[in-house]
Amino acid sequence: MSVDVPQRVLILGGVRSGKSAQAEQWAKHSARPVTYLATARIEDEEMRARISHHRATRPAHWKVIEEPVALASTLRAHAHPEGLILVDCLTLWLTNLLFDSDPQCVQREQDALLALLPTLPGTLILVSNETGLGIVPLGELTRRFCDQAGRLHQALATLCDPVLLMVAGLPVFLKGHS
Amino acid sequence: MSVDVPQRVLILGGVRSGKSAQAEQWAKHSARPVTYLATARIEDEEMRARISHHRATRPAHWKVIEEPVALASTLRAHAHPEGLILVDCLTLWLTNLLFDSDPQCVQREQDALLALLPTLPGTLILVSNETGLGIVPLGELTRRFCDQAGRLHQALATLCDPVLLMVAGLPVFLKGHS
Amino acid sequence: MSVDVPQRVLILGGVRSGKSAQAEQWAKHSARPVTYLATARIEDEEMRARISHHRATRPAHWKVIEEPVALASTLRAHAHPEGLILVDCLTLWLTNLLFDSDPQCVQREQDALLALLPTLPGTLILVSNETGLGIVPLGELTRRFCDQAGRLHQALATLCDPVLLMVAGLPVFLKGHS
Repeated sequence: MSVDVPQRVLILGGVRSGKSAQAEQWAKHSARPVTYLATARIEDEEMRARISHHRATRPAHWKVIEEPVALASTLRAHAHPEGLILVDCLTLWLTNLLFDSDPQCVQREQDALLALLPTLPGTLILVSNETGLGIVPLGELTRRFCDQAGRLHQALATLCDPVLLMVAGLPVFLKGHS
Repeated sequence: MSVDVPQRVLILGGVRSGKSAQAEQWAKHSARPVTYLATARIEDEEMRARISHHRATRPAHWKVIEEPVALASTLRAHAHPEGLILVDCLTLWLTNLLFDSDPQCVQREQDALLALLPTLPGTLILVSNETGLGIVPLGELTRRFCDQAGRLHQALATLCDPVLLMVAGLPVFLKGHS
Repeated sequence: MSVDVPQRVLILGGVRSGKSAQAEQWAKHSARPVTYLATARIEDEEMRARISHHRATRPAHWKVIEEPVALASTLRAHAHPEGLILVDCLTLWLTNLLFDSDPQCVQREQDALLALLPTLPGTLILVSNETGLGIVPLGELTRRFCDQAGRLHQALATLCDPVLLMVAGLPVFLKGHS
């Protein structure tokens, strides 16, 4: 990955597939100042433990921002041409949107992200869970999530390059090259 | 994809992964008269909405057939050497079979499809959901579905070329080339 | 695959994706004496039927060992420089560990496997289910399984070459070449 060209990187993958590690490795190697945008809401001990585990693996000098919902406006506020923003992850952001918001807001936030991508200064690395390759469990919210996540990934994949699917810590390049 | 050679195309993919769009794009570019074979049963409003959404994206001049169960005989009745049939999707067909039919019928219909494929005139594009890469939820019918779908995909993949897995709207060629 | 070089092969894949068939084909073609290490516990009729189905497809002269938990020590006891051991599968082994054992034992067994891999004589083929690419169902044990399986696959993938993901009976090479 060239460190000079503003890029949009989309890293998909399953549970514990090495998505975050891949993203963080890329960010470290970019030689750019990194802003880490965490979308998680800490709502129970399990989530707290997962977040602590992730945090311990990241460089201490990275700037960390927490924003569970207003992703596009937060990206716009923190982007600059020499910088790199790592968003981990879109899945939690989309879940937060679906739980909290009216349907119009869900669509508006996603549209805002998609509209922002082509013009945002600097490098952006987006991490998201691929959840569409299993049986979809019962429940209207789960089906809505799967539909929204699938559509969002398709739309983002047209705007990003490279696009990766992580399996067992190894990248499958869906778009672009290694 | 050459427009001259009869082909068997198998397009797998997750929920909202762009399977149908990929299949429809191929059908449009084939310059062949297209028969669209829909296997869905419209049984509730959600299904009706999904089908309307898909229908709005397809050319109006395509011939549309609806057949939820008798796939092989319907293919045989509508195939011709210059034509292209797009089946969307095998997942709903298999679900219909498993819900409605005795086990012998389920096997007979699948065997009939597999026996027909090598000799069916014209081009055939098969769309199916990949559902085997997550945790299999509890329930005997779900496990039977996953087993049947996995075996069917394996058997079809030996008869089809190319075979694709769609992820985020992007094709991974499992067999054949882009 | 060269038959001369000791190898570590990791074959991942979904339900009925052709993982075992791929592993068994490789073992047959290796011209090495094969030890088949089965991790399944036969606890109900469905499991018995699945195992019989698998067994019928394997050469009768393969040595078969059944070991649900103590994988590393069993591998060490049966490995030799000219031989090939096929482990089918890590998913059942990990499930057995999680159901039966205290957390320390779960970690100890996994650590023992990872420590053994670089020095084990002969060829080793490991088969495991990829279960992380769908929605993770509710339930603390299921989430723990997904986490453990994902981490284990990542760790194994750094030690194995080639690493494959099977889809519809077709291999995607995540590492190494066909």
